[in-house]
Amino acid sequence: MDIASLVGLLAAAGLIVGSIATGTAPFSAFLDLPSVLVVVGGAVGASMICFPLKTILGMPIVAKKVFLNKPENPSKLIDQLISLAETARRDGLLALEGRVDEVDHNFIRLGIQMAVDGTRPEVIEDIMRTEIDAIATRHRDGKALMDQMGRFAPAYGMIGTLMGLIMMLSDMSDPSSIGSGMAVALITTLYGAIVANTFFIPFAEKLGFINKQELVSLEIIVRGIMAIQSGENPRVIAQKLGTFLPPKIRALKEAA
Amino acid sequence: MDIASLVGLLAAAGLIVGSIATGTAPFSAFLDLPSVLVVVGGAVGASMICFPLKTILGMPIVAKKVFLNKPENPSKLIDQLISLAETARRDGLLALEGRVDEVDHNFIRLGIQMAVDGTRPEVIEDIMRTEIDAIATRHRDGKALMDQMGRFAPAYGMIGTLMGLIMMLSDMSDPSSIGSGMAVALITTLYGAIVANTFFIPFAEKLGFINKQELVSLEIIVRGIMAIQSGENPRVIAQKLGTFLPPKIRALKEAA
Amino acid sequence: MDIASLVGLLAAAGLIVGSIATGTAPFSAFLDLPSVLVVVGGAVGASMICFPLKTILGMPIVAKKVFLNKPENPSKLIDQLISLAETARRDGLLALEGRVDEVDHNFIRLGIQMAVDGTRPEVIEDIMRTEIDAIATRHRDGKALMDQMGRFAPAYGMIGTLMGLIMMLSDMSDPSSIGSGMAVALITTLYGAIVANTFFIPFAEKLGFINKQELVSLEIIVRGIMAIQSGENPRVIAQKLGTFLPPKIRALKEAA
Amino acid sequence: MDIASLVGLLAAAGLIVGSIATGTAPFSAFLDLPSVLVVVGGAVGASMICFPLKTILGMPIVAKKVFLNKPENPSKLIDQLISLAETARRDGLLALEGRVDEVDHNFIRLGIQMAVDGTRPEVIEDIMRTEIDAIATRHRDGKALMDQMGRFAPAYGMIGTLMGLIMMLSDMSDPSSIGSGMAVALITTLYGAIVANTFFIPFAEKLGFINKQELVSLEIIVRGIMAIQSGENPRVIAQKLGTFLPPKIRALKEAA
Amino acid sequence: MDIASLVGLLAAAGLIVGSIATGTAPFSAFLDLPSVLVVVGGAVGASMICFPLKTILGMPIVAKKVFLNKPENPSKLIDQLISLAETARRDGLLALEGRVDEVDHNFIRLGIQMAVDGTRPEVIEDIMRTEIDAIATRHRDGKALMDQMGRFAPAYGMIGTLMGLIMMLSDMSDPSSIGSGMAVALITTLYGAIVANTFFIPFAEKLGFINKQELVSLEIIVRGIMAIQSGENPRVIAQKLGTFLPPKIRALKEAA
Repeated sequence: MDIASLVGLLAAAGLIVGSIATGTAPFSAFLDLPSVLVVVGGAVGASMICFPLKTILGMPIVAKKVFLNKPENPSKLIDQLISLAETARRDGLLALEGRVDEVDHNFIRLGIQMAVDGTRPEVIEDIMRTEIDAIATRHRDGKALMDQMGRFAPAYGMIGTLMGLIMMLSDMSDPSSIGSGMAVALITTLYGAIVANTFFIPFAEKLGFINKQELVSLEIIVRGIMAIQSGENPRVIAQKLGTFLPPKIRALKEAA
Repeated sequence: MDIASLVGLLAAAGLIVGSIATGTAPFSAFLDLPSVLVVVGGAVGASMICFPLKTILGMPIVAKKVFLNKPENPSKLIDQLISLAETARRDGLLALEGRVDEVDHNFIRLGIQMAVDGTRPEVIEDIMRTEIDAIATRHRDGKALMDQMGRFAPAYGMIGTLMGLIMMLSDMSDPSSIGSGMAVALITTLYGAIVANTFFIPFAEKLGFINKQELVSLEIIVRGIMAIQSGENPRVIAQKLGTFLPPKIRALKEAA
Repeated sequence: MDIASLVGLLAAAGLIVGSIATGTAPFSAFLDLPSVLVVVGGAVGASMICFPLKTILGMPIVAKKVFLNKPENPSKLIDQLISLAETARRDGLLALEGRVDEVDHNFIRLGIQMAVDGTRPEVIEDIMRTEIDAIATRHRDGKALMDQMGRFAPAYGMIGTLMGLIMMLSDMSDPSSIGSGMAVALITTLYGAIVANTFFIPFAEKLGFINKQELVSLEIIVRGIMAIQSGENPRVIAQKLGTFLPPKIRALKEAA
Repeated sequence: MDIASLVGLLAAAGLIVGSIATGTAPFSAFLDLPSVLVVVGGAVGASMICFPLKTILGMPIVAKKVFLNKPENPSKLIDQLISLAETARRDGLLALEGRVDEVDHNFIRLGIQMAVDGTRPEVIEDIMRTEIDAIATRHRDGKALMDQMGRFAPAYGMIGTLMGLIMMLSDMSDPSSIGSGMAVALITTLYGAIVANTFFIPFAEKLGFINKQELVSLEIIVRGIMAIQSGENPRVIAQKLGTFLPPKIRALKEAA
Repeated sequence: MDIASLVGLLAAAGLIVGSIATGTAPFSAFLDLPSVLVVVGGAVGASMICFPLKTILGMPIVAKKVFLNKPENPSKLIDQLISLAETARRDGLLALEGRVDEVDHNFIRLGIQMAVDGTRPEVIEDIMRTEIDAIATRHRDGKALMDQMGRFAPAYGMIGTLMGLIMMLSDMSDPSSIGSGMAVALITTLYGAIVANTFFIPFAEKLGFINKQELVSLEIIVRGIMAIQSGENPRVIAQKLGTFLPPKIRALKEAA
């Protein structure tokens, strides 16, 4: 579980709630169901025009990915690739056939299987890199929905506020209700800003970060598989792949 | 028909109408024909300067494409290409001549016809990829009109509001009409925001999405045709093209 | 003459004027010469710092290009190139010497002349593509001036409004003049928004569109000349260049 | 001296001053030293965090470059390169040794010297293009400072206005001073907008333009030197380099 | 220590404080702890969702890097690389083994060690350039956090202001407290703008600048190592690497 994301969300939301609690107005001044409907409903409705239904329905899963993200461990991946390289170097490529089942990672398994099947190197690299492109594209579509909602939420907040102001200004017969009319009008803009800056934009950025990490792991794997298939010396492979690790972790590995 | 788009449009529009209905002001406070003319007429007029007449006249067709879009089915395309590959592998390229008529998709037909005619591989690829570029360009122009209107609508909304405010401020002799004067002034900004965020921007984004899907299908076809022409093993072609499918669908295909 | 641009400009301007005419304030409330000077003079003055004098002086010509643009006809260009290809194929490259004078288009003439002179193919392509780059750059500079003015006009509108508000707020001794003071202050923002959204931004976008069309024609010509010079079969050239035409027009050509 | 820049600056500044002079408020309403300090001092201070001290100190020189810019004359450069090409073609590369001293332009001198020294063509091109990259980078850093100040000036203007408004709103005991309090608060936003739109943004754009012109000249020189070194026919070199000139000037040259 | 950054920060902050001190309101009108919590806490909280915990915890180190940055000295690096090149040219590559320990810079050491180990040139270049990519990526992530906080701070400032306005408008029973209520509401926007424009944005830009300088040094090193390994003449290496130095420094070196 991603502690930082959880703490961050609680912190940002908590500060907003705490600010209201210590303020001069009661909570009720900040709650307005029609405003919630305009902001969230409008943003979701507009997004449903933009994206296919299955992307919209997949949004809770994508949001969960932000919290329960198990960070990639490139160091472990490299260790596994070096181990496979040593087997291939010592006993030949076909020996990897026996090790395919112990490999968890689908992408490593794909590469090893093609190498064992004798697929030509250019074909292996072409298929693996096309796969990476496809994964990157699927990532981008998932993030695009969050980004788009982060743009629509404030836009519908502003639409709600304009409607509220027009309602209030059309009937200014009761001067004492002007203030509360304006307050209610401003609530939609507030909801739009909160929902965009506490949820949609941070989640979209985090998704982008998670996606980048995953692409780095996939790049390590492609390079590892190509090196194994060409019979490269495992020590050289270790050096090539080591550049993907931050210097401190790399130094620890080399000491070991 | 694209259910999600229809539901989304009804939802966003419905929430806005519902918000007005449950609000404190009558519907008439929100209806103002001159405002509609300034926002929609101004946006269309300015767009007519930007784009050729035939692009403007084509806008209803483009909008219809968003609702009635029949999503691409890359899985079916791949099946068809594999089938053609098997025929070519078994009976030779010229055998595809007899199968050209059963092919619906214009782009596959173009590629097969050139392969059967004995056109050189580099020429086939060059023509097909130039065709893809041309299609991508035509897509971009269609989307550009929607994007541009999505920018002009709020701009003309703001112009309308400024004109309304100037009218109201020039003659403040009747204090009781200040409120309604400001309300009318704000209506154009509201129309501009609604029209941009419920119609133009979502439609433009959806068009972009539909266009990308179509380009993926065209990419699958080019790669398939080039592989068929070079006599590649249909199983390898299936593997190469399979990377364009999401993992779940690919697994189902491989199980079959 | 470009009907769409003319109609669009009249429509947008007409709606704005009509809105004022049907409104509650007299026209005089919207006319303010100092405001015009600040917005137009400021935008032009700031643009004169940005661009060389000859680009500024060329702006009316560039604006005229938007209205009187004679759209490129790629279909005619392709027909002419095919015809030259057939001559070259039948009678040899040197036979084109006799046809150079019938060629109107400067760029086709440049290419044919170099081919007839026996210039090496790589040199012909290098010179033609450098020429295209140079033309694209000159286009971009012309458009950049319009874009920049479209940014400066609202900026100087805002500067004018701030000055107007400061003037009004410094001397609030006469409450009845506050409204008209604010109205005059808002006029510069209105002028800036109108001038940007009815003239500069649409004209800049149209210029971009015209430029892109011209670059497509130049691309067709380069490819045509290179194909003629290498003795390519005119039918294959027709197919290669045909991809630049929208499908309907291409089908008509092929039927003919 | 660049007349257009000087006229533009005087025009924009003059219109602003004239607008104030013909307005209803005295000049003193627009002068406020603390506001100047916040806008200019804040923008400079924030920029000093962004850029190294020597870039900041170099800003007056960079500003002077905008006014006193001596425009590049590509036509003269091309004439000089053709002349050197003719010498090399007639008497051999080493004959250029005697002409090195008459060459003013450092970059042409660098290229000729390397050619005379017998440096390999790939090395000459690599060094010259790395030099162009380095010059482009130094240009970009100089422009980046102007751009950044153009962003900080309005930002600090807004900070100043917020501070002014807070000061005024904290103490609203004297209603008659509300107007002048707001006027003073707005002055910083006005200064920020004027300084950004009359000085920083136009100067940054002009710098970008000057830089692009210089890079075109450098590109002409690299291509010329490479062509001279490979013994290309001076007439072909003239044709290749001529594409960098606008058509009218090129026609004049060819007539001559 | 980076004088410019320190002076800039003190200048910008000082002007703001000075402006308040010379203004009409007491300091207390500008201090509001809940506002600080909303702006800083909200920005940090939202950033914790975006970035992994270790990036957030590393922010003070990154901020320190801006102040205590020891600028790269490409001139010294070039001298060292030329010296190593002379050793290699005179005594052979293996002679560099004895000089590895005197090399401080990790990246030069990496390259020399691989050259001495006899690693193939393509492998050395591949590993070194992958290392540069990895460093560039780590730089970008560090800067991204600053950039993101620079976007969240004003956003949460606006959220705080909206909350304050809603509180004030909900209860307008006491007209004399309206002013101070609005003043307190505006404070969060002010904090957001100050924190973004005095700290986050300038620091992010400075980080970008430091990162670019470091990448230039790494580029010089890669080119130097590749040239040493291929036995290039030290004088040619000096010329190739010299293009990375500003002209004045390069002239001084060549005179020496």
